[in-house]
Amino acid sequence: MSARPTGLSRRAVIGGAGAGLAVGAAGGAWGGRASAHAPTDRGTLGAARVPFHGPHQGGIVEPAQARAEWAAFDLLASTRRDGLAALLRGWSAAAARMTAGEPAAEGENQVALDAGPSSLTVTFGFGASLFDKVGLADRRPEALAALPAFPGDALDPARSDGDLWVQVGADDALVAVHALRVLARLATGLAAPRWLMSGFARTPGATPHPMTGRNLMGQVDGTNNPRPQDPGFAATVFATGPDWMDGGSYAVLRRIRMLLEGWDTLPLDKQERIIGRRKSDGAPLSGGPDAVERTPVDLAATDPDGVLRIAPDAHVRLAAADSNGGAAMLRRGFSFHDGLLADGSPDAGLLFAAYQADPARGFVPVQQRLSRGDGLSRYLRHEASALFAVPPGAPAGGYVGQQLLEG
Amino acid sequence: MSARPTGLSRRAVIGGAGAGLAVGAAGGAWGGRASAHAPTDRGTLGAARVPFHGPHQGGIVEPAQARAEWAAFDLLASTRRDGLAALLRGWSAAAARMTAGEPAAEGENQVALDAGPSSLTVTFGFGASLFDKVGLADRRPEALAALPAFPGDALDPARSDGDLWVQVGADDALVAVHALRVLARLATGLAAPRWLMSGFARTPGATPHPMTGRNLMGQVDGTNNPRPQDPGFAATVFATGPDWMDGGSYAVLRRIRMLLEGWDTLPLDKQERIIGRRKSDGAPLSGGPDAVERTPVDLAATDPDGVLRIAPDAHVRLAAADSNGGAAMLRRGFSFHDGLLADGSPDAGLLFAAYQADPARGFVPVQQRLSRGDGLSRYLRHEASALFAVPPGAPAGGYVGQQLLEG
Ligand code: HEM
Ligand code: HEM
Repeated sequence: MSARPTGLSRRAVIGGAGAGLAVGAAGGAWGGRASAHAPTDRGTLGAARVPFHGPHQGGIVEPAQARAEWAAFDLLASTRRDGLAALLRGWSAAAARMTAGEPAAEGENQVALDAGPSSLTVTFGFGASLFDKVGLADRRPEALAALPAFPGDALDPARSDGDLWVQVGADDALVAVHALRVLARLATGLAAPRWLMSGFARTPGATPHPMTGRNLMGQVDGTNNPRPQDPGFAATVFATGPDWMDGGSYAVLRRIRMLLEGWDTLPLDKQERIIGRRKSDGAPLSGGPDAVERTPVDLAATDPDGVLRIAPDAHVRLAAADSNGGAAMLRRGFSFHDGLLADGSPDAGLLFAAYQADPARGFVPVQQRLSRGDGLSRYLRHEASALFAVPPGAPAGGYVGQQLLEG
Repeated sequence: MSARPTGLSRRAVIGGAGAGLAVGAAGGAWGGRASAHAPTDRGTLGAARVPFHGPHQGGIVEPAQARAEWAAFDLLASTRRDGLAALLRGWSAAAARMTAGEPAAEGENQVALDAGPSSLTVTFGFGASLFDKVGLADRRPEALAALPAFPGDALDPARSDGDLWVQVGADDALVAVHALRVLARLATGLAAPRWLMSGFARTPGATPHPMTGRNLMGQVDGTNNPRPQDPGFAATVFATGPDWMDGGSYAVLRRIRMLLEGWDTLPLDKQERIIGRRKSDGAPLSGGPDAVERTPVDLAATDPDGVLRIAPDAHVRLAAADSNGGAAMLRRGFSFHDGLLADGSPDAGLLFAAYQADPARGFVPVQQRLSRGDGLSRYLRHEASALFAVPPGAPAGGYVGQQLLEG
């Protein structure tokens, strides 16, 4: 669909003192975690770097790191457009330094200094509510229109939305938390934190060979994600407009709690039927015993009795692009495990994130279908939701959002 | 003080298919993270194993893993002594299998199966409230006497105490969370979860060479911990009685929130004065510019004006064994970062854990002194507290607590 450069080549090979590691070139997102990382020799996990500058922001196509922090901020009432520009300039400068393994500023908290950047990425996003507040209502993208309500939504407004979004990811939790603290301090007097969520994915080196990660339900999750090398990848994931969003993306976030106590008591065959894939290795149920994870899904396949092998309400059937007029997205979620709820059940699940060129041709139609008919929905609660415009990456010397604020 | 075997030699060398890695022999706890791990080549982070069976339970002397889950359980009213024994038998069997990288049971949730054990440890503890409930009041150790109230305590009973404690640690968060889920399911019908906390420490390989970890205030934390090779180590950390606790330890847990917004605005020299050590490298302020992290602390050292180099209210002065009649403990904490409080400040700090032969000669006198005079206290809130008897390790074929329940 589009052959324009996606910036992957720029980001694919990273240098740095004593380490030349390939990051982000293969696999993409959750699916390709291990394959996209160089061996994690002592110290090289720390040394792995993802450049901050480039056509796209980091934290979209790179594999999900071991630890993620998501924070939303709201502008203070006193903050004008120039204040927002100053904040974004400061944030970008700090992110550029920290992702390169340098201290964010003179005399800063030393939490992360011993470690290298540990594949740190920092991603900034703008919520629909931001634009009015700084006199830029006329430049708010149509793609930021509020998401529709979906059946079953149980959204907590206090943990949803926000003027600004910061996603931090790193393979060392101290590096990630420290980076977020630095950015939060830079917002003092300009923006206040609105909500904060922490998540995790596999630690590099935990699996003996490269493989797709699992979520807390135990499923291999990320298999059928679009891959950077696919011809339609850029058109699926990256926006082409409005002007200042060219090369950006739209991020849909959902805090999805899993009803694990019910899920865990289901027999294996029921669990597999609900997804449409084998739990052990993620192979599609349409493929028979010899299928492997990458065997293409065949939604029409039937068993000898004529019964669909991938059930009518299977998650992969209802989520597939073919079932949704081609709607597709890049999923890059993290698991969360946040203590106990009042009833003693675990507050755990998926910090779902989907990146797409336009949510109206990505998340929205798919979730409309899933929320109505997906067998998995019974075991899920969508508890928070947000949609952010993730501007393109900044060139060296520039800052994220500059095209909007100075354009 | 004691030369009896501490079990370290047994635990020091671990085998396993294709990997022979030394774990836990050097450094100890938080302090020795990296030094105690073999290089984390792809897959070998996952392959690292800590044996479940041995004279002491795992998760005490081994370096703090990248992810920890702490859970407390209360027995159901219907659970008798035989029910508790069945629970502990089941828990020990599952822990032995999972720490060896085997599935906990037939048909279990597959979350962790792709990864190796990733240095998984599982540690069980008994709270004072357990003994009455199963007719064992006469065998409750005196060392489990309730901790005194300390000035400044702001304890939440719902997140304190508990009949049973489970500590899970692993270098991969999915492995840790999965292991806890397995154990929680085994408790169904016998015990209910009371509270749950998640923490983190450095990921192996994040730092370019072995070094002591940092906490979220940015300090090098763990330097002056007792070391397994110290002659008094076993006497400091491991109990010798009552009978069933011989080789066990007493764990004091405190959820200590850090008032990071205030702390982070303090100038560096004030931060260093409050601890008594340099922030950059942890060297004691008594040692002058050439001091290094391991330079012994000299509490009597003065500068040319006669002013104490380690301030009268410095944390390391008040916490030192010399200031507390020799009281000492093994600290093995994890950082936590759990979202925002209502006022927008981060709910973050230290899941403090101290292991000792007797809290009355470890945590209690030290915390009495700290809570009265420590300059650091102003930046801390002790929000939850618990004390657990951590029985000795189980031999192969046995289970943790067997000496109490069948002795
Ligand atoms: C906690 C909630 C969810 C869980 C546990 C989950 C799990 C899975 C699993 C196991 C797969 C199969 C492997 C793969 O191709 O990645 C999958 C596929 C997929 N999911 Fe989800 N999912 C969840 C929520 C969602 C949501 C909210 C959306 C979007 C609205 C979504 C969209 C997709 C898509 C597009 C696919 C690929 C389908 C295909 O082309 O084969 N999922 N999901
Ligand atoms: C969030 C709270 C705390 C922080 C940030 C903190 C931080 C530190 C730091 C940076 C050191 C110096 C490095 C080292 O030797 O490990 C230290 C030492 C020490 N701390 Fe703490 N600490 C905290 C709470 C406590 C508590 C509650 C206790 C026990 C009641 C304690 C007992 C000790 C001891 C025994 C030492 C070693 C002193 C010595 O022998 O030099 N700490 N702590």
